[in-house]
Amino acid sequence: MSAILPAEQCDLAARYLAVRAQTQALAAPLSAEDCALQSMPEASPVKWHLGHSTWFFETFVLGGAPFREAFRVLFNSYYVGVGERHPRPERGLLSRPSLEEVRAYRASVDERMQAMLRGEHWRERAALIELGLNHEQQHQELILTDVKHLFSRNPLLPAYLEKALPAADAAPAGWRAFPAGVREIGHAGGGFAFDNEEPRHRVFVGGYRLADRLVTNAEYRAFVEDGGYRRPELWLAEGWDACSAQGWSAPLYWRDGGEFTLHGLRPLEPAAPVVHVSYFEADAYARWAHARLPTEAEWEVAAQDQPLAGNFLDSGRLHPLGGRSPAFGDAWQWTSSSYAAYPGFRAASGAVGEYNGKFMVNQYVLRGGSCATPASHVRATYRNFFPAASRWQFSGIRLARDN
Amino acid sequence: MSAILPAEQCDLAARYLAVRAQTQALAAPLSAEDCALQSMPEASPVKWHLGHSTWFFETFVLGGAPFREAFRVLFNSYYVGVGERHPRPERGLLSRPSLEEVRAYRASVDERMQAMLRGEHWRERAALIELGLNHEQQHQELILTDVKHLFSRNPLLPAYLEKALPAADAAPAGWRAFPAGVREIGHAGGGFAFDNEEPRHRVFVGGYRLADRLVTNAEYRAFVEDGGYRRPELWLAEGWDACSAQGWSAPLYWRDGGEFTLHGLRPLEPAAPVVHVSYFEADAYARWAHARLPTEAEWEVAAQDQPLAGNFLDSGRLHPLGGRSPAFGDAWQWTSSSYAAYPGFRAASGAVGEYNGKFMVNQYVLRGGSCATPASHVRATYRNFFPAASRWQFSGIRLARDN
Amino acid sequence: MSAILPAEQCDLAARYLAVRAQTQALAAPLSAEDCALQSMPEASPVKWHLGHSTWFFETFVLGGAPFREAFRVLFNSYYVGVGERHPRPERGLLSRPSLEEVRAYRASVDERMQAMLRGEHWRERAALIELGLNHEQQHQELILTDVKHLFSRNPLLPAYLEKALPAADAAPAGWRAFPAGVREIGHAGGGFAFDNEEPRHRVFVGGYRLADRLVTNAEYRAFVEDGGYRRPELWLAEGWDACSAQGWSAPLYWRDGGEFTLHGLRPLEPAAPVVHVSYFEADAYARWAHARLPTEAEWEVAAQDQPLAGNFLDSGRLHPLGGRSPAFGDAWQWTSSSYAAYPGFRAASGAVGEYNGKFMVNQYVLRGGSCATPASHVRATYRNFFPAASRWQFSGIRLARDN
Amino acid sequence: MSAILPAEQCDLAARYLAVRAQTQALAAPLSAEDCALQSMPEASPVKWHLGHSTWFFETFVLGGAPFREAFRVLFNSYYVGVGERHPRPERGLLSRPSLEEVRAYRASVDERMQAMLRGEHWRERAALIELGLNHEQQHQELILTDVKHLFSRNPLLPAYLEKALPAADAAPAGWRAFPAGVREIGHAGGGFAFDNEEPRHRVFVGGYRLADRLVTNAEYRAFVEDGGYRRPELWLAEGWDACSAQGWSAPLYWRDGGEFTLHGLRPLEPAAPVVHVSYFEADAYARWAHARLPTEAEWEVAAQDQPLAGNFLDSGRLHPLGGRSPAFGDAWQWTSSSYAAYPGFRAASGAVGEYNGKFMVNQYVLRGGSCATPASHVRATYRNFFPAASRWQFSGIRLARDN
Repeated sequence: MSAILPAEQCDLAARYLAVRAQTQALAAPLSAEDCALQSMPEASPVKWHLGHSTWFFETFVLGGAPFREAFRVLFNSYYVGVGERHPRPERGLLSRPSLEEVRAYRASVDERMQAMLRGEHWRERAALIELGLNHEQQHQELILTDVKHLFSRNPLLPAYLEKALPAADAAPAGWRAFPAGVREIGHAGGGFAFDNEEPRHRVFVGGYRLADRLVTNAEYRAFVEDGGYRRPELWLAEGWDACSAQGWSAPLYWRDGGEFTLHGLRPLEPAAPVVHVSYFEADAYARWAHARLPTEAEWEVAAQDQPLAGNFLDSGRLHPLGGRSPAFGDAWQWTSSSYAAYPGFRAASGAVGEYNGKFMVNQYVLRGGSCATPASHVRATYRNFFPAASRWQFSGIRLARDN
Repeated sequence: MSAILPAEQCDLAARYLAVRAQTQALAAPLSAEDCALQSMPEASPVKWHLGHSTWFFETFVLGGAPFREAFRVLFNSYYVGVGERHPRPERGLLSRPSLEEVRAYRASVDERMQAMLRGEHWRERAALIELGLNHEQQHQELILTDVKHLFSRNPLLPAYLEKALPAADAAPAGWRAFPAGVREIGHAGGGFAFDNEEPRHRVFVGGYRLADRLVTNAEYRAFVEDGGYRRPELWLAEGWDACSAQGWSAPLYWRDGGEFTLHGLRPLEPAAPVVHVSYFEADAYARWAHARLPTEAEWEVAAQDQPLAGNFLDSGRLHPLGGRSPAFGDAWQWTSSSYAAYPGFRAASGAVGEYNGKFMVNQYVLRGGSCATPASHVRATYRNFFPAASRWQFSGIRLARDN
Repeated sequence: MSAILPAEQCDLAARYLAVRAQTQALAAPLSAEDCALQSMPEASPVKWHLGHSTWFFETFVLGGAPFREAFRVLFNSYYVGVGERHPRPERGLLSRPSLEEVRAYRASVDERMQAMLRGEHWRERAALIELGLNHEQQHQELILTDVKHLFSRNPLLPAYLEKALPAADAAPAGWRAFPAGVREIGHAGGGFAFDNEEPRHRVFVGGYRLADRLVTNAEYRAFVEDGGYRRPELWLAEGWDACSAQGWSAPLYWRDGGEFTLHGLRPLEPAAPVVHVSYFEADAYARWAHARLPTEAEWEVAAQDQPLAGNFLDSGRLHPLGGRSPAFGDAWQWTSSSYAAYPGFRAASGAVGEYNGKFMVNQYVLRGGSCATPASHVRATYRNFFPAASRWQFSGIRLARDN
Repeated sequence: MSAILPAEQCDLAARYLAVRAQTQALAAPLSAEDCALQSMPEASPVKWHLGHSTWFFETFVLGGAPFREAFRVLFNSYYVGVGERHPRPERGLLSRPSLEEVRAYRASVDERMQAMLRGEHWRERAALIELGLNHEQQHQELILTDVKHLFSRNPLLPAYLEKALPAADAAPAGWRAFPAGVREIGHAGGGFAFDNEEPRHRVFVGGYRLADRLVTNAEYRAFVEDGGYRRPELWLAEGWDACSAQGWSAPLYWRDGGEFTLHGLRPLEPAAPVVHVSYFEADAYARWAHARLPTEAEWEVAAQDQPLAGNFLDSGRLHPLGGRSPAFGDAWQWTSSSYAAYPGFRAASGAVGEYNGKFMVNQYVLRGGSCATPASHVRATYRNFFPAASRWQFSGIRLARDN
């Protein structure tokens, strides 16, 4: 006679299986060689993502004897509280453990996790498991953006996924207006949120308007053709230095009149939202367009009443699709807000407290989720963040203006 | 019969003379050699400061034929709208023009400015002249901090000014409490302000407390002795990287149990406010002290009702003095606010519009003025800003806490 | 009825098969992941070595349509005369072509080469084929030294080959004496030689003595324990700078009292020749030992009458064995001679003329062959060369003294 | 009644005065600011040269209490045996000691040296004094080349010396032929020589020809116009990398159709010898001209029978003059010889033994003396040496060919 489990426990176990399977599915089109390489210090090999997301459960949820002692260090990303870390820029030096062994590691942890999830002590660890699943979803997106970067550095320009795609569509741009006043932003409880989304708190927001879709490739190309990359007066000084030093003349993956995508090199789609621009480019574009980037408060206030619809990872189109999208999907949207603690922010205790707080400097907040984000990972209070010169994420532009 | 001038015109001409004379006085203790050297890319030779502040008046106020054609480029700091600039890291390669010639340049511009200030067209340029004087005051402080850095790199550890100093004094620390609510910050008009202080606007501020004096050397030393520079859990991740890469183990000028000052190497004064700490150190200290840094809004709200009293450049003690100081003086105080445009910010038109706006990324706001700031340059709305790793300014710490 | 071939043609075809098979055998213990990674700009992935040595035959011997157009660029090392090259530091970014495809490339070229070698036009290409085979043997050694470096950067310290090894043996050191006089060095014709070994020419050599075996680990450890890495007076100035900047305190692969080898981490064998020392270390050791390094002329004069015996790749012991060895085997021996053209040197015409000549600056000559060199690749006139700070080759020390 | 001194003693004292005065004279046209700046790590401020050459006498000849304790470290260049050194790249951070104080230092040492030179113990120190004078002459040349580099980085392009110059003259080029055989090179005793010129020893030299004048600007310009800086096949691989990385397209001081000289920016003189080329450029030019650079043995054999005539520092024309010059003057001439110890080389004992030997790696020998070398400093056995990428010395090209 089989045991009877609470629905909540069933759900968590099922969700665990689903998220873990999704990660495996993302790695499926890749060879062991594809999974072993690191194309820049900011990116990691897919094999490392597979191991690290597993390490997270083994370390923070399961505890006990590890699958292999050396993995404690090899797959620790940045948790000083857990101990030594293998240096990030050297993740691409590890031909061993093999991909096969990392898969065995995953299987071993999955087995132990399933046992735990069906046992008596699942509830006191449910919050950490939920954190681990959300953590793994973040690495799902990174698997795609990191392998995209790797493939872009290969002269053969391999496609991650051969696939016929529907044409992108650009609705005519419009503006949504919002009045000035005191609003509330941040996570209010109910459902999972990272610590950086809390506490919910009051902010004063001036009157503003927000574009109801993202800036398209066609619009961005007009900026390029108007000398956008040659006119320092449009740029922040540090942005201009980055642009000059790194020789930017277009978004990261534009080349030869087309665009390198996870579906290979394709003609540039004028109607698709522009992606792979840095904060500096987004800011310069906005200045050129006589607009500005929204603050994260402005963005969130506008998103609070919007459905969680958009083009996400689940669509299988790993590239922006466009159309009217008042908040979510296709591309992470740079805000003008430096990533900082909300008033009253408290990091979790223990090593998982290192998850977010220690990165709250010199990074800028992005909102909305991208075509590489799992749909179940997106919400209005979600705060993504990257340094201002970063380009290898699916980062795009939504414009704002004062009323 | 001499002309009769409006008092306002008289005042401006007098203020011009006073500010310009103050700059000369700051350079007076220095030899031509002292004035020619550049100790790091972020600092400039004193001679360059003397020339650049003069160039500002010649370029933006006087116009017309320059004193010397080559100076258009040599003394342009970063105004792309004006034309070419001599590269900043190469300012220390200029033995010519000589200090003597730069002084002649100053004299020539002063003469032309005095004529203009006594003529008919002074009023339409009054705003630019005021900007130029405030600009020059900023460079007065930089003259002192840059020469301090230069001297600190010289094994002879020269004193800028030999002087007997009164002992510093540390009042017992207290907290001032402020309630939550919508407040106004920013310049309201009346008197000079930089464009980045405008417009005045509403913000929501939660309830908070603010220390009524700065953190002292004795307090900071307790942090050092408690392993502050060896405990990554106290630091922002990027701060820890900077700390490790640059080998920080104390504030910039602490050495051999003492502190290098503009008055030479001196015993560390326990009661004096700690200075020459980076944002990263200020943030780590605050975390260690179970407190936090204030936001710039919190700081400004607290300063609005405070007198403009404190230890400024005018005291001749070019080092913090300490004591109770609810807002101003002794040291610039790091806030947790990333330097950004106020809502509705508009940069001035023309090249002077490059003054502030283009630096609004990856820098942090400091408030309050230091012992090297002219008293007439300080106000509650003033926003200073530097990158988070900067240490060579007189930057210190005021703690905040939630109510 | 099968064709009758000249013995010379038979020999060349057989030798081709043997050398190519040897390369495959060296890669056999490695996974596709092992073969894809690059651990530093100076090293290359094994997969690249497999492709490049094949490219050499396809480009310089076969001509005609390539196996795959993109390989022209991907596998060109430095032959400007052939066209574009994929940047060397980016060889580790190529997960595609897969190892499998590179093996297919090898098979295709081997097939075409075999047809050519059995056809009518083999003779006019025999010299280039012989060059290609010697070239491939050089890459055999690099496959081993590069994978050794890669594995040394992996905390798991994998062994390339698990194998029980006989103990090393150190004969008592002796000196062989040589009188002053005019001698001849360089290749005299008869058998293969690289262009840099020609022409044979006269040199004047002073009287000298040469050690009849290599410096051992035990001897080198005495240098280390005598403060060899802390005494600048023993070092060339540039060597001391390298030692300080890179933190050298022992040969490259000494660690934890043992030595990392292609057979895994093993106890340090006192009797085995020291390897993986730079020219700077060899020079400092010699100075400490009141001796010096030999010139390449001195070395070659001494080697001219020696049999080609020693521990080479063929022994399967991929680590020095030691014993008396008046010239060859175990380790490449640093000479004090800067790598330069012999008088009357003429580079080959065409792109293969880039093989040697353009590297004749700021490198030092090594002689004698190592435990990773194929025995058939060694000869008395052979000139190997590396920059003075290089340590990842099997480079050791033979001492010399004036008579 | 005045003392009677041996003529040899008189001569040494007089020579001391003359050499020291010459150094002062070279600094005379420069301001204190000119003397304080350092334009690159390889160059030093003139003030440092003035102090260091004085330190040499104080440290190695006088001994006893120093003029100022801190100068022991500040003016030590690289003598580890003497103690700590101020870091070379930071010599330009020293506004103190002032130029005036350094002059007082020189006067103090001169006074003490004169007393010693007139006393009883002069003879046992004569060799060190002679070394010090030759050392100072080397720094005389460096004063000129370092200040030339500094001025070249100043957009005002100051002239070190305004002077009308006679036109340069280019004799038709011819070749001198030398037969093969065993020859002797190196210092034979009699007169001063540095330790690196000893011992005299036999070398075998093949038959060769040497140009009887230096390569001219006109000839070098033909190389430039023939694409010399765009054709990698003409260059050593490391040279091409340097050329590409540093953007070379002509000799260091060619600009705007003219040439920057110590006499200011002047039209390029076609007949004058080309100067300020690196070893890499000299080598590439020679290859383009179907010739090669001479070895230092070839150069010295040819110079042995030549008078010590040429354009030296003493002419006051601080720029090459040209004309037939079978050996000396106008420009140091790159040889193809890597700087190495002569057979039987022994460095002097004590700290002065660091003078030459520790630099014998990765540098190339130059011969012949330049327009900035004191005539009394030149001889056939003299070995100058610089890294292959160095361009800021007066380095030029003499071609050689095999017979």
